Amino acid sequence: MREFILYSRTGRTDSKWSNLHDAGRLDIVYECIITSLFLSHAIRRDVAFHAVLYGPPRPPLHLEINGVSLFNVRTDQQTWEKILRKVLSGQGHPGIKVSKTGFETLVKKKVESAKKIYVLEESGSDVSQIEIGENPVFILGDQVGLPKKCEDFVLRYGEKISLGRKPYLAATCITILNYLMDRKETLQKR
Amino acid sequence: MREFILYSRTGRTDSKWSNLHDAGRLDIVYECIITSLFLSHAIRRDVAFHAVLYGPPRPPLHLEINGVSLFNVRTDQQTWEKILRKVLSGQGHPGIKVSKTGFETLVKKKVESAKKIYVLEESGSDVSQIEIGENPVFILGDQVGLPKKCEDFVLRYGEKISLGRKPYLAATCITILNYLMDRKETLQKR
Repeated sequence: MREFILYSRTGRTDSKWSNLHDAGRLDIVYECIITSLFLSHAIRRDVAFHAVLYGPPRPPLHLEINGVSLFNVRTDQQTWEKILRKVLSGQGHPGIKVSKTGFETLVKKKVESAKKIYVLEESGSDVSQIEIGENPVFILGDQVGLPKKCEDFVLRYGEKISLGRKPYLAATCITILNYLMDRKETLQKR
Repeated sequence: MREFILYSRTGRTDSKWSNLHDAGRLDIVYECIITSLFLSHAIRRDVAFHAVLYGPPRPPLHLEINGVSLFNVRTDQQTWEKILRKVLSGQGHPGIKVSKTGFETLVKKKVESAKKIYVLEESGSDVSQIEIGENPVFILGDQVGLPKKCEDFVLRYGEKISLGRKPYLAATCITILNYLMDRKETLQKR
């Protein structure tokens, strides 16, 4: 299982917003959901995406979208605006869980289940120099980046890795990581 | 200059639609615009993205978005829904051109200006085995793929390349290609 955790400092924790952008940039969460979980006409069943939302009114909120059981979805924003509004208002959707777990508690759970933690940072070790382990967990900041306190916390457990010198969007980082791991798996199968 | 050309067989060629998805999947065109041209808080000034729209009512329509002169934009879908509606109704926006050029004419122009053409196809040569030239032009199909006639046409001028065995979304292919070329440029600068 590959996992991605996005820290969203502004993502709204209710369903009272007019669109994803104005909901504290839930459009970024949406973009990351798509790049984590979707192939053309297929869902990546080996991926889970997490967003921990710290926007008003009731932070934190942990949103987990698991490729194993996700269904009844498409890739367009309208579909996900409806799904996110639904789950943030307390209703269910197959493959999606919402809980009051905070970022640090979530990271600790992953560490306890022996997952390897990687923190995306421009100043980290270049990804080409790193041997990514089995069942990796990648941690990404939102448009502003990880708050210093969270970064210090995750770096007690994880390794800083970098995709290069360009400042990529969070969703772009996820696409690149999925691609690099796809390549690695293909090479291993040969 | 890197260029991407997306063939959209259903993308609407007017501005009379309620949202990008229902406009013959202009949401796919939007996703490709973002992955072609946007870094975090910056525009790729060395990229041009083209979509050739074949949806009703007046196909074809060539939409060119040039990173050199594009401004007054953000990455969210609302912003681009407004911009696309504006340019499809005949108004202007900095960095965006709309013309009646068809797909084959556009490809021919690129060939005439000595650009190297690459056609994205799962059955092509693996990208790791190919030396991508200067000023590459990458051609992608929409959610259905390139029509056979267009594919036969572009293959007279271009080379088939593949990103691997996974069926990636068009926008994902663009992200991966941008990344591979960023890496190449970084290595060349060392």
